[in-house]
Amino acid sequence: MFLLEYLDHTIKKIKSQAANALTLLNLSLGGLAILFILKDQLNLSLLLIFLAALADRFDGMVARKLQVESELGKQLDSMCDIISFGIAPALLLYQSILFEYGAPGAIFTIFYIACGALRLARFNITESNGYFTGLPITAAGCLLTLSYLGVPYLPSHFFMFLTIILALLMIGTFRLKKV
Amino acid sequence: MFLLEYLDHTIKKIKSQAANALTLLNLSLGGLAILFILKDQLNLSLLLIFLAALADRFDGMVARKLQVESELGKQLDSMCDIISFGIAPALLLYQSILFEYGAPGAIFTIFYIACGALRLARFNITESNGYFTGLPITAAGCLLTLSYLGVPYLPSHFFMFLTIILALLMIGTFRLKKV
Repeated sequence: MFLLEYLDHTIKKIKSQAANALTLLNLSLGGLAILFILKDQLNLSLLLIFLAALADRFDGMVARKLQVESELGKQLDSMCDIISFGIAPALLLYQSILFEYGAPGAIFTIFYIACGALRLARFNITESNGYFTGLPITAAGCLLTLSYLGVPYLPSHFFMFLTIILALLMIGTFRLKKV
Repeated sequence: MFLLEYLDHTIKKIKSQAANALTLLNLSLGGLAILFILKDQLNLSLLLIFLAALADRFDGMVARKLQVESELGKQLDSMCDIISFGIAPALLLYQSILFEYGAPGAIFTIFYIACGALRLARFNITESNGYFTGLPITAAGCLLTLSYLGVPYLPSHFFMFLTIILALLMIGTFRLKKV
């Protein structure tokens, strides 16, 4: 009897932590991606950012499925998103191509990160209504990361242009239906 | 008359944006610090993190003084803090010494960032009551950055130890009076 109660309690605890664990997995993959960028292993960091996106896709789903959505979970998710889809993709592009432009390259990189932070701050204080306002940072980060594959083939101006466009789309006020 | 009204409106607008502009300055300095770490210019990045701390000290002060404190400002501040005092100091230490440890060095670096994110997420959902719960990330980040000056003189184990201690202090539940 005692054992059953204990088991029930443990399962409840695991459930409530499962979503946050996935969020922290997202953060760890994003953090690792940044460390690989530091060591110039850019292909590996691309893989890690996509794995982080996968973890990100599942954490909200798990939280809703297990009915353990929380305000802390939402806040933590945004913190992880700025790391995995704000900083990591921006550094990947900076390290692979944008650094060639010197100061403007650095300014564009930081502008992308700042717009991501602004978007997430705004997202954190708005009620969920089935719509995104502006391009989600996960989408922007994945597109920026994907564009890294085009570095050997596309003119370098393209990447400056893409970075600024994605940054502006993130802080845009248009609405997108959530899928 | 119209000019006076316009001037008054503009001053109000500037006031309300002054605090957020300082917060974005903090983020830009932190972002620039990370770019300098990528290029192995560690002394410069140390300087930038301390300048970010200075901007961070003033933004809350300005918001309170001008009575333009906002929920968006608080959220944006936390986003900037994870960049300037979470990621930047962790990468500074990783790039200067912790990378020597291989996987454990990477794990400790990511653990510090994760604890910082957890602390800020918790901070965002708690009401201000004149106390900090756990070590503020600004203090932890500045101490970690300061410790970089000791890299040539102190045993490398010290930095692993310091990173983990600061990470745990951030998620601790003790209370510190705000100054």
